[in-house]
Amino acid sequence: MTPEALARACADAMWADDPASKSLGMALEHVAPGAARLSMEVRADMVNGHGMCHGGFIFTLADSSFAFACNTYNERVVAQHCAVTFLRPARLGMRLTAVAAERTRAGRSGIYDVTVTAPDGSVIAEFRGHSRGLGQPFFQDLPA
Amino acid sequence: MTPEALARACADAMWADDPASKSLGMALEHVAPGAARLSMEVRADMVNGHGMCHGGFIFTLADSSFAFACNTYNERVVAQHCAVTFLRPARLGMRLTAVAAERTRAGRSGIYDVTVTAPDGSVIAEFRGHSRGLGQPFFQDLPA
Amino acid sequence: MTPEALARACADAMWADDPASKSLGMALEHVAPGAARLSMEVRADMVNGHGMCHGGFIFTLADSSFAFACNTYNERVVAQHCAVTFLRPARLGMRLTAVAAERTRAGRSGIYDVTVTAPDGSVIAEFRGHSRGLGQPFFQDLPA
Amino acid sequence: MTPEALARACADAMWADDPASKSLGMALEHVAPGAARLSMEVRADMVNGHGMCHGGFIFTLADSSFAFACNTYNERVVAQHCAVTFLRPARLGMRLTAVAAERTRAGRSGIYDVTVTAPDGSVIAEFRGHSRGLGQPFFQDLPA
Repeated sequence: MTPEALARACADAMWADDPASKSLGMALEHVAPGAARLSMEVRADMVNGHGMCHGGFIFTLADSSFAFACNTYNERVVAQHCAVTFLRPARLGMRLTAVAAERTRAGRSGIYDVTVTAPDGSVIAEFRGHSRGLGQPFFQDLPA
Repeated sequence: MTPEALARACADAMWADDPASKSLGMALEHVAPGAARLSMEVRADMVNGHGMCHGGFIFTLADSSFAFACNTYNERVVAQHCAVTFLRPARLGMRLTAVAAERTRAGRSGIYDVTVTAPDGSVIAEFRGHSRGLGQPFFQDLPA
Repeated sequence: MTPEALARACADAMWADDPASKSLGMALEHVAPGAARLSMEVRADMVNGHGMCHGGFIFTLADSSFAFACNTYNERVVAQHCAVTFLRPARLGMRLTAVAAERTRAGRSGIYDVTVTAPDGSVIAEFRGHSRGLGQPFFQDLPA
Repeated sequence: MTPEALARACADAMWADDPASKSLGMALEHVAPGAARLSMEVRADMVNGHGMCHGGFIFTLADSSFAFACNTYNERVVAQHCAVTFLRPARLGMRLTAVAAERTRAGRSGIYDVTVTAPDGSVIAEFRGHSRGLGQPFFQDLPA
């Protein structure tokens, strides 16, 4: 099995078990070892009266991308610490895209950077997530 | 008007304009100058197949508490940067409580700490939010 | 041995092995379980041409306070992740004080908050440190 | 004047006014718009009794690289908030290299990522700095 196929298999297992991301309307667009891209439209139940998206939903999109990116090596990995910087408002109806990339891994710890952009490419938020491996495989019969 | 009454008036204006927090089932339990407490039950659409809450919803509860706490001085304030540490899992059906307290303010910048706890008092997450004032009042006829 | 005496013994062992903090002129003023206070004067080799202290030295003072606070339970603990917010400049000749307090512990992980103040009490920086225990005691014959 | 020459001129002005970085033995190896590379040898006065570098000096090297990278546009910029993750120990005698790269800019705010590496390329620390422009030029007669 190639690393790409293993990443995809892990993501499929994650996605099947993630009603939360689905209920927010997220789409899993791409996954590869240490990388993921998800998108989500800003819905009416995510904005305030001025049509601006609650930062929590922007975080949640980034956090899901982070989770898919770090869970691509046949080891279950959880989020320990995440930081987000809000740079521009996201508005009702915008489709946001969150691209997660691995920055580094050392032992059981990993750092992943996620950029959330608007359709015009402007950056809505920058996110950095710290992961920790649990030492448990997704698939017992595949190598970690 | 007392600082407490002003904080309450600001919170009422915020709450009236926050369908996002309401749609997640949050309750605004307390507000005072620089402080707020909100609670939220972990619903079926917030968890994975093992009944564990998506970190994004825990963040969102903390972020809402932070927003209510920093918007208590008749100046509109936005979140710039937030960090969260996930300490224990939150499970389906748990009612989470997020207590926000002001740590410091300097010029237009503020720092607020939020602790999210389970009903038994165990800490689910620690959050620190950085705010920035916009120089715009909630109420034109009241002092900032 | 009381928790206070154990904290002091750990701090003495740390201090004896910390030429870096000493070379910066830090003084260990107080230590207790989960808490520490250190101070340091801003020296000529810590400032720029306008007499403002390099942020790195402010961080280092906070980081030392954090290290002393988290190493008070007869377990060797290291810093994993630290964040600092610079609120006001520190100037040549100022004696800075860094007070570290434990926010929470969960398993091997801990969170400590450090406030760095000027002599007039104004806040220079706020720091949050995340620690991780190594499972190694300072003193083999004492309980962890 | 090219952007590269302007970045170099700003860095020269910064360096002339930075005795703190010099006193730690830092070398400014490279600067370009939004980017910088500095190096520093771990000295005896930076380590503990086991030869491990105090995290504060690793942070300080990263912070200096961040400062040089964000001050390359003829506007004076200061650090607001910085986070560092310590991944591996740095040892006595190691020459550490800190490479700073601009992640994004929005209005007066910027985000810069710095990676600190050992001579063998292994990552010692990852740093993310948030900057804020002061609206003051380095050179009155040059464009910002």
